Amino acid sequence: MALVVQKYGGSSVADARSIKRVAKRIAEARRAGNDVVVVVSAMGDTTDELLDLAADISPKPPQREMDILLTAGERISMSLLAMAIDKLGVKAKSFTGQQAGLLTDAVHGKARIVDVVPHRIRQTLEKGQVAIVAGFQGVNTGNNDVTTLGRGGSDTTAVALAAGLDADVCEIYTDVDGIFTADPRIAPGARKIDKVTYEEMLELAASGAKVLALRAVEYARRYNVPVHVRSSFSGKPGTLVKGTHGDLIDPNASSEEQEEAAMEDPIISGVAHDRSEAKITIVGVPDTLGQAARIFEVVAAAGANIDMIVQNVSAAATGLTDISFTLPHGDIRSTVAALNAVKSELKFDDLQVDDEIGKVSLVGAGMKSHPGISARLFGALRDAGINIEMISTSEIRISVVTRADNLDDAVRAIHTAFELDSAEGEAVVYAGTGR
Amino acid sequence: MALVVQKYGGSSVADARSIKRVAKRIAEARRAGNDVVVVVSAMGDTTDELLDLAADISPKPPQREMDILLTAGERISMSLLAMAIDKLGVKAKSFTGQQAGLLTDAVHGKARIVDVVPHRIRQTLEKGQVAIVAGFQGVNTGNNDVTTLGRGGSDTTAVALAAGLDADVCEIYTDVDGIFTADPRIAPGARKIDKVTYEEMLELAASGAKVLALRAVEYARRYNVPVHVRSSFSGKPGTLVKGTHGDLIDPNASSEEQEEAAMEDPIISGVAHDRSEAKITIVGVPDTLGQAARIFEVVAAAGANIDMIVQNVSAAATGLTDISFTLPHGDIRSTVAALNAVKSELKFDDLQVDDEIGKVSLVGAGMKSHPGISARLFGALRDAGINIEMISTSEIRISVVTRADNLDDAVRAIHTAFELDSAEGEAVVYAGTGR
Repeated sequence: MALVVQKYGGSSVADARSIKRVAKRIAEARRAGNDVVVVVSAMGDTTDELLDLAADISPKPPQREMDILLTAGERISMSLLAMAIDKLGVKAKSFTGQQAGLLTDAVHGKARIVDVVPHRIRQTLEKGQVAIVAGFQGVNTGNNDVTTLGRGGSDTTAVALAAGLDADVCEIYTDVDGIFTADPRIAPGARKIDKVTYEEMLELAASGAKVLALRAVEYARRYNVPVHVRSSFSGKPGTLVKGTHGDLIDPNASSEEQEEAAMEDPIISGVAHDRSEAKITIVGVPDTLGQAARIFEVVAAAGANIDMIVQNVSAAATGLTDISFTLPHGDIRSTVAALNAVKSELKFDDLQVDDEIGKVSLVGAGMKSHPGISARLFGALRDAGINIEMISTSEIRISVVTRADNLDDAVRAIHTAFELDSAEGEAVVYAGTGR
Repeated sequence: MALVVQKYGGSSVADARSIKRVAKRIAEARRAGNDVVVVVSAMGDTTDELLDLAADISPKPPQREMDILLTAGERISMSLLAMAIDKLGVKAKSFTGQQAGLLTDAVHGKARIVDVVPHRIRQTLEKGQVAIVAGFQGVNTGNNDVTTLGRGGSDTTAVALAAGLDADVCEIYTDVDGIFTADPRIAPGARKIDKVTYEEMLELAASGAKVLALRAVEYARRYNVPVHVRSSFSGKPGTLVKGTHGDLIDPNASSEEQEEAAMEDPIISGVAHDRSEAKITIVGVPDTLGQAARIFEVVAAAGANIDMIVQNVSAAATGLTDISFTLPHGDIRSTVAALNAVKSELKFDDLQVDDEIGKVSLVGAGMKSHPGISARLFGALRDAGINIEMISTSEIRISVVTRADNLDDAVRAIHTAFELDSAEGEAVVYAGTGR
């Protein structure tokens, strides 16, 4: 008997039929003897409909009221799901973020979890009942106001509850079979990854893999919560996210299992891509001490989430350099405005915005200790005739910025160069999940 | 400067345009220097949509989950309304029933208010902000679960908050101009009533006038809250519900005003009608001691809300009598089943169900002390060729059951007989309100 936290996204509970299907799976998990806690997102496009309503009312509504509005979506899905489970003869109760003890700070729209106090969830489990919890929301304990967790909020709710309840596993149900070595819509030979460490998953999520929210992975890593990403449409095992490099192996497993696990431990996990960023280049910056620091102070104050930064060597003749960085499309306007406001102070010549870029990333454990990985990647792109515009690396990742037009070709070239293509060429459907 | 509680029903906030219109009215009330608390229902047909969703999931969902589901509607309307007011430059904050301190018992679906502790509402008013409160809902303090108040819940929320805040007036905004002497769709000469006592309003509401919920009137009477029923589409004064018979007159008013008020005090308030009931007749009941008590024990246990009861004099030859009572259509099935289950014990011959009845009621203060009222009413029906099937009376009301087909004619005949028709024949639109 295990304690299982299951999370279902909006596409898994899009209508009455989907809710009944999910309820059946939950009832089966309970009947198999597990303690089951379910985290649920709003139904299908409910959130978009609520956002449209708000936009009809006010271009810039107060964030506190937006949070109240948006959390209505989970109230609907969680109560309907509890009804559907009850109809199958299994007792279920639904709880808001507040009732489930998800305590947050006061930052409406992107609150951080400060504590998880799941007394009522424990009581519900002790009675043999299934607990349904609204994803994406919490309560600001200072004033009892509802807050939302922002992007990836429901995944984070699930992992935080799993940590707070010391669950055996946190299952993230989605509309794909797990994490893949690349987006199968782009690389048809992409394979499902059976196991991946927190660190690799972090790099994959940060590099554009949308199946699991970055923030939830960070939380899972900190509290050592095993996360199982799997399909709500099939019974197949998905991708298990757990452990750090070198300890993917279960210490309680037999020596045969340990050996097999170690042998299966892949050096290269997969190829992620991201179309959501643009590039800003600050042209002709005097290459003086503290100039970069001042630039990124200004950018940070504008609220932009910077990803890659590249500074060229300054031309000796002029003492001027160019600094390029990537950031989400949505942050372009405020960032350009903030930089132009201090143009005379920073003494740069020009700002260039390029929103036609793509980023491809190769992620794998122990990448730095294997010489030749970068060379093979760059070679694959060269052979495919793809120009590299920016490069950034970490211990377990190499990212490259290309023209947006070249991104799909880049994913395929790298996926093939690192022998990730499956022999069978599994036909799978891959898609991002909602919040 | 007054403290005003305003309640807007679902039809007043049916879409973004309506919400903006209501917001304007609220902002004006605030700018005029009033402290404003607003109680709001769910938008238009949101509640029906949620009920449909639940029906798709389960024929008999747990009531706790139904309450969670339905309260999503007010979350949406209250946050949108707060946004719309904020956009007009007036600060507004929305609060759930729990946050507003509406404490109830644990009866999901028809909870009773046990206390009102509106700390946060007071704090909001002290900051000069408008407080928006979700109607229809409260919190069961025993376990922090959300409850709903059932039919007429939002009116009751408004009156309860007005009582708890010691407000100067509770304004119930609706889509008609106030309480009328009859339904103007049936009696075109119906006039708006300017003032009415709690007792008369209670009888009107209990007799089928749907503009103000019976329960809210009971609450207003107990806590002496002046209620102003008025249109959200016009600035015209509506109907003021306050005082008891004989003290409609403001004791602080001048003697001229007092005299005028007394002279205006109508003996007959209006004619109400009700099509929502059916009649059950228990045929051939032995006329023995305690038989009626036993019958209505059984009926009460079936959960039926009985209205009128008539027992005929028993036929001396047989010692058998017939007992008829009226009840809501929705209670017929369970009541018939309960009675048939004890048929051998009660020894009656037959049960007859008649769902083609209508009830018309004449309501007015001091009716019993004015001889001839009943005679005039029965005479008007006779002259119109309408047969009377049951009669029931109170201090300030006479109700008569007729064939459903005759109900409109009965309303017109009585309205005319008591000279309630206006000279002008105001063209008004009359309709019931939602919850």
